[in-house]
Amino acid sequence: MAATTKAVSAIRNYLKNCSGFESILKNIKIISAGNGTCLAEYKVEQNATNVLGSLHGGFTATLVDATSTYALYCDQDEITPSVSLDMHMTYMKAANLGDEILIDAKTMRAGKNLAYLRVEVKNKQTGDLLAQALHTRFLLSEKSY
Amino acid sequence: MAATTKAVSAIRNYLKNCSGFESILKNIKIISAGNGTCLAEYKVEQNATNVLGSLHGGFTATLVDATSTYALYCDQDEITPSVSLDMHMTYMKAANLGDEILIDAKTMRAGKNLAYLRVEVKNKQTGDLLAQALHTRFLLSEKSY
Amino acid sequence: MAATTKAVSAIRNYLKNCSGFESILKNIKIISAGNGTCLAEYKVEQNATNVLGSLHGGFTATLVDATSTYALYCDQDEITPSVSLDMHMTYMKAANLGDEILIDAKTMRAGKNLAYLRVEVKNKQTGDLLAQALHTRFLLSEKSY
Amino acid sequence: MAATTKAVSAIRNYLKNCSGFESILKNIKIISAGNGTCLAEYKVEQNATNVLGSLHGGFTATLVDATSTYALYCDQDEITPSVSLDMHMTYMKAANLGDEILIDAKTMRAGKNLAYLRVEVKNKQTGDLLAQALHTRFLLSEKSY
Repeated sequence: MAATTKAVSAIRNYLKNCSGFESILKNIKIISAGNGTCLAEYKVEQNATNVLGSLHGGFTATLVDATSTYALYCDQDEITPSVSLDMHMTYMKAANLGDEILIDAKTMRAGKNLAYLRVEVKNKQTGDLLAQALHTRFLLSEKSY
Repeated sequence: MAATTKAVSAIRNYLKNCSGFESILKNIKIISAGNGTCLAEYKVEQNATNVLGSLHGGFTATLVDATSTYALYCDQDEITPSVSLDMHMTYMKAANLGDEILIDAKTMRAGKNLAYLRVEVKNKQTGDLLAQALHTRFLLSEKSY
Repeated sequence: MAATTKAVSAIRNYLKNCSGFESILKNIKIISAGNGTCLAEYKVEQNATNVLGSLHGGFTATLVDATSTYALYCDQDEITPSVSLDMHMTYMKAANLGDEILIDAKTMRAGKNLAYLRVEVKNKQTGDLLAQALHTRFLLSEKSY
Repeated sequence: MAATTKAVSAIRNYLKNCSGFESILKNIKIISAGNGTCLAEYKVEQNATNVLGSLHGGFTATLVDATSTYALYCDQDEITPSVSLDMHMTYMKAANLGDEILIDAKTMRAGKNLAYLRVEVKNKQTGDLLAQALHTRFLLSEKSY
């Protein structure tokens, strides 16, 4: 509980201060984090939409990448830097402007060199699954890959 | 040749005017387009980077999604709207701030309902392959999926 | 319950009589099926191994493909033929000769044209996750793709 | 040229003698190998088909897995053992009983820990692309993953 609160605070703090590309995620809300998981919420804004007026697949991919990385890191006191190796997105249903979505990320397994993450994106109101994703990260210990 | 020029102009025009998420791509240069392909160039800017100071995987995914969709559409007079079904990213090597990268997208096959695209991301100076991706799109004819 | 039993019997019967490639799966045991899910068990045999003496990734892919398709079909009285569109395998840990593994497949969403499936492969004794997979199928209604 | 011939012979010899799951591939013909590539040919047999009478997706996945691994190994005098991390299959078109197909595998990049492979499966007569795949392998140096 205390650990979770600390993890949530750390991620919120990171998002508030981050520059670079993840600053596009500054309006996501971290609901919970801990034990290798991270649950975030996001209300689809106009600057995240595609030409059809729904959530852009690249934005969804960014949500997946970031949230699953927070899930991986949330229990670590000292972060092991890591990079994405493979990320697979399966898109099922659109999220429209103003829809509230949940991004639910889970560490499925983490070893010395590799971490395996899984993410579900859901519509908060209807519970419909909008996308599912798998994400494999390579942990950069002393040496690069 | 004339067709290619027309396709390049159409994409450039689209990017100049687009609102929504793809406005983050407004600084990419469309080098060529036509016959189901699209080649774009991008110089990595600070607002596309991750905490390690290199190109963010979510930005790369957005480049892949967008460029392959332009490749699919570049020969169509009337665009058939489509949505991403599956997108798979394999990341191999980082691109750093200021690096110039090439995004080379190709339509591998396009039928009535489905289109299959492939993308390579390379470092322009060194020629190193940085990422490769497969993208499957569902074409929305009269009916949604 | 009755429906589940009927589904299990139908799959067992299919496996007993199938010719073609799925006859390599004749020794898998269907534990349960119903409500869009299928749980199977398999004890790794020599003819399923790779040069390192562990379960071959191609055999695992076949288990994933087949079991998730049974999960999709288990509630249908009349089967809609379908084909694989995308299948993504993430391998995490080896299964060795003689290990008992569980293949747990779930229909995440099924619409008119597309079905989205997810599979976990686990070591039965240790509970360790060995592989996870996503599988997208295209449903062949009146017309091919 | 001599190197290529040696690589082709080594793979042919491996296939002739292999036990385990890859013995299902004993009828594939290795056309060429070398410089990180491997080209194989296969005439679809009844024992490789699915219920629709066409090439089973699990067999295709096995062809992809094996052929790309031969591509990775074909230039090595001493083989570094490796395991699959991620394999992504995109299926586009069926191959039917008796069809001759080409499996064209290429090493896109290979480092100390990771190798990135790409495979195209084509109909030999028509040239149609039937499937494309990406395969990431982890090289087992002194330590396991």
